[in-house]
Amino acid sequence: MGKKLTKRSEDYSKWYNELVLRADLAENSAVRGMMVIKPYGYAIWEKMQAELDRMFKETGHQNAYFPLLIPKSFFSKEASHVEGFAKECAVVTHYRLKNAEDGSGIVVDETAKLEEELIVRPTSETIIWDTYKRWVQSYRDLPLLINQWANVVRWEMRTRLFLRTTEFLWQEGHTAHATKEEALEEAEKMHEVYTRFAEDFMAIPIIKGAKTENERFAGALETFTIEALMQDGKALQAGTSHFLGQNFAKAFDVKYATKEGGLEYVWATSWGVTTRLIGALIMTHSDDNGLVLPPNLAPYQVVIVPIYKIAEQLEAISERVNQIMSDLRARGISVKYDDRTTHKPGWKFAEYELKGVPVRLVMGPRDLENGTIEVARRDTFEKTNVEQINVVQKISDLLKEIQENLFSKAKVFRDDHITEVNSFEEFKKVLKEKGGFVLAHWDGTIETEKRIKELTKASLRCIPLDAKEEKGVCVLTGKPSNKRVIFAKAY
Amino acid sequence: MGKKLTKRSEDYSKWYNELVLRADLAENSAVRGMMVIKPYGYAIWEKMQAELDRMFKETGHQNAYFPLLIPKSFFSKEASHVEGFAKECAVVTHYRLKNAEDGSGIVVDETAKLEEELIVRPTSETIIWDTYKRWVQSYRDLPLLINQWANVVRWEMRTRLFLRTTEFLWQEGHTAHATKEEALEEAEKMHEVYTRFAEDFMAIPIIKGAKTENERFAGALETFTIEALMQDGKALQAGTSHFLGQNFAKAFDVKYATKEGGLEYVWATSWGVTTRLIGALIMTHSDDNGLVLPPNLAPYQVVIVPIYKIAEQLEAISERVNQIMSDLRARGISVKYDDRTTHKPGWKFAEYELKGVPVRLVMGPRDLENGTIEVARRDTFEKTNVEQINVVQKISDLLKEIQENLFSKAKVFRDDHITEVNSFEEFKKVLKEKGGFVLAHWDGTIETEKRIKELTKASLRCIPLDAKEEKGVCVLTGKPSNKRVIFAKAY
Repeated sequence: MGKKLTKRSEDYSKWYNELVLRADLAENSAVRGMMVIKPYGYAIWEKMQAELDRMFKETGHQNAYFPLLIPKSFFSKEASHVEGFAKECAVVTHYRLKNAEDGSGIVVDETAKLEEELIVRPTSETIIWDTYKRWVQSYRDLPLLINQWANVVRWEMRTRLFLRTTEFLWQEGHTAHATKEEALEEAEKMHEVYTRFAEDFMAIPIIKGAKTENERFAGALETFTIEALMQDGKALQAGTSHFLGQNFAKAFDVKYATKEGGLEYVWATSWGVTTRLIGALIMTHSDDNGLVLPPNLAPYQVVIVPIYKIAEQLEAISERVNQIMSDLRARGISVKYDDRTTHKPGWKFAEYELKGVPVRLVMGPRDLENGTIEVARRDTFEKTNVEQINVVQKISDLLKEIQENLFSKAKVFRDDHITEVNSFEEFKKVLKEKGGFVLAHWDGTIETEKRIKELTKASLRCIPLDAKEEKGVCVLTGKPSNKRVIFAKAY
Repeated sequence: MGKKLTKRSEDYSKWYNELVLRADLAENSAVRGMMVIKPYGYAIWEKMQAELDRMFKETGHQNAYFPLLIPKSFFSKEASHVEGFAKECAVVTHYRLKNAEDGSGIVVDETAKLEEELIVRPTSETIIWDTYKRWVQSYRDLPLLINQWANVVRWEMRTRLFLRTTEFLWQEGHTAHATKEEALEEAEKMHEVYTRFAEDFMAIPIIKGAKTENERFAGALETFTIEALMQDGKALQAGTSHFLGQNFAKAFDVKYATKEGGLEYVWATSWGVTTRLIGALIMTHSDDNGLVLPPNLAPYQVVIVPIYKIAEQLEAISERVNQIMSDLRARGISVKYDDRTTHKPGWKFAEYELKGVPVRLVMGPRDLENGTIEVARRDTFEKTNVEQINVVQKISDLLKEIQENLFSKAKVFRDDHITEVNSFEEFKKVLKEKGGFVLAHWDGTIETEKRIKELTKASLRCIPLDAKEEKGVCVLTGKPSNKRVIFAKAY
């Protein structure tokens, strides 16, 4: 297995980068800022997709697919959207290559220049609303509840595997509604779906809040966010749901005939989560020994390693193991049997520890005699010997316990890192010495928000939805405030 | 429902285009040649994906994800590949837009020009083999069995929804092996997987064959194909599996240490199917009334329409229907209940006929009294009254019967359209008057193959794998030949 991982306490950032590579999750490609998602990393994404897709369908959404390339002029149609998205992006200008005349290779064919440049989608509001114009005529066509699974490109200058990459995978929901109330309700509903997914599947406790005007999605009237806290005390925005008002309907002229015979602009939402979630998953639960995966998203929940000296022992063990695997699978538990003869048990133990498999089972000749099997947890490293006849029930219970334990542990850490401060000195001290979420009064202006970020590198993460009314004064300006908001350094 | 579809006999091509639009499968977007796949069309693709993905995993493959954009120079590395793919493609030359100085909108920022242009992937061999170079060192790393679900762009001049679009969705398998035999076996195995998928799920009978050198994938030593026949007598290539030899391993310098301590180039395959399959599905089974879907790929297999005059009737019917739906779902049958009050039953009948739902159930007040329900098949239009207590078993059987009937019907048509010809006059006559697959002797040269295409517009579809040895003479040149090959006009 080579040398140990860098410790989190030594260099958190280095630990993360090493872990992503060594656990076979992803790696950099030959194209600057674009990653290759390796099979084990992609298997986690598939698990996430399957759960989210089920949740979207249960809330009435359907999938569809819209073009990768968007005409440049579309971005100019919605004023604030163009500011946010028509900047760092991949621009397609030509549609043909040819052999160089000097035989030096292939070159762009200058005669094949596009009349209008096409942009590789950084997000799809514009091309989708250009389509909705054709789909929406009457109130009978509403609501439109559509989701897309896709790749997008944003030309990032500084990239990190999963957390910030030039190309990433995501889902983007885009809905159209007859009324403002219904659209707002949809944005809130998807905010709640993301919360349930983060907490119940990723085992990540989150804070639900609204973004300030300054941090909103370009074109949104309201952006709801779920904010998570990483082990190094930095925040990570894990999903957003936007109420877009009638901005895109007006930009693309999407009106509907009301029941009463009027003609109204449609109301919109959009919402998305990305492969960045894999970065959040890693940074929330993993330790100095490697990845720690919640059972609900692990590519395989159980790995079984045989210990033997001679071929006959392996054969006898494998026979028992096959029966146990079949019983586990019948209970919906995913399991891998690593009976490779090319690697020793010790190597395998280290490998599956690094890869964060929730439960490891080991069976040797003595277990075979005694009717036992060794059960080891990845989260606590606890080992117990279990009667083989009880192992399926034991593992079924254990997986639930591990899932809950990871959530509780992350919640204790998160709750320990929410600190109320009442002065700017305290604000800076907490950020510097402890990190985490800082709950502070703020005067409600963009100027103050920006000034605080300049002075401390902490951004205003969100206005928590459950913030209680409380009179106070802004930590920076001393102006009055009626609730605390959350600041943090962030990914 | 508006006016009727154009009849296939009047204008097959027009019938197809109308059907795709009217059945809500797909439509053209604002970007030339790029389609929007609508929810109903996308749901068919999801069904296809789910089955194929299962088949790939059962044969030991894992999914991964590689970059969308590929450096231009990569295409020059494999000599025949560059000829085939580095031509009509989308070229990214810049990475930033800016506001025009004259305020006229946004323009490309000329200072943000890429040093090397990036190509939107038309296929991923090059970027994947550049990655495999890092993944393969020893025989222990082989085989690598990887698949990617992705979008690709090929700048097509003439496009048609599903059949030929500038952007399309597909899967591309890319495998690396220690030996030639193992790679060839893999290419053949995936050829067989595609055959099983086409016949058992799409209900499309296919001919398995090998492409001639002229029609092979750019960079392949052998291309296996599954060829289907559409109702207008034209062929459609429905999937290909390539044995790539060591071409990409040599181009990207991918070698492995053998067990014996030597160093050898790796052997490769690639294989793919695309959203084009949806076009094949439509053109194989559908009729003048609309889409006909095989139950194994229908987004919903059963639709239930209530007939009622007053709200109390609807309520009583719905109660019975809910029980039936729950019983159907317990048997794994997908069902939709259309109890919308905004549309009349007649409108609904026409809608689901157009959309090809395999089975329609109708329940009215009299059925409620008699304990019956009307069952209508989309493929034969046959209607029967069934006792409600038998309806679940009846439908379960019926879905299997419809699946088989669609396959048999397509097979009878296909077999009727395979014609042996022994002269070039006969060849041209059959092509003109009957269409379909023409089985003819060919002298084995690219010149003759190309000449026949020029003269007749028929391409050499494949050398059937089950072609029997038979002495004959080439229909064009009279030179000796030892087996018949298949020609056809094709999509």
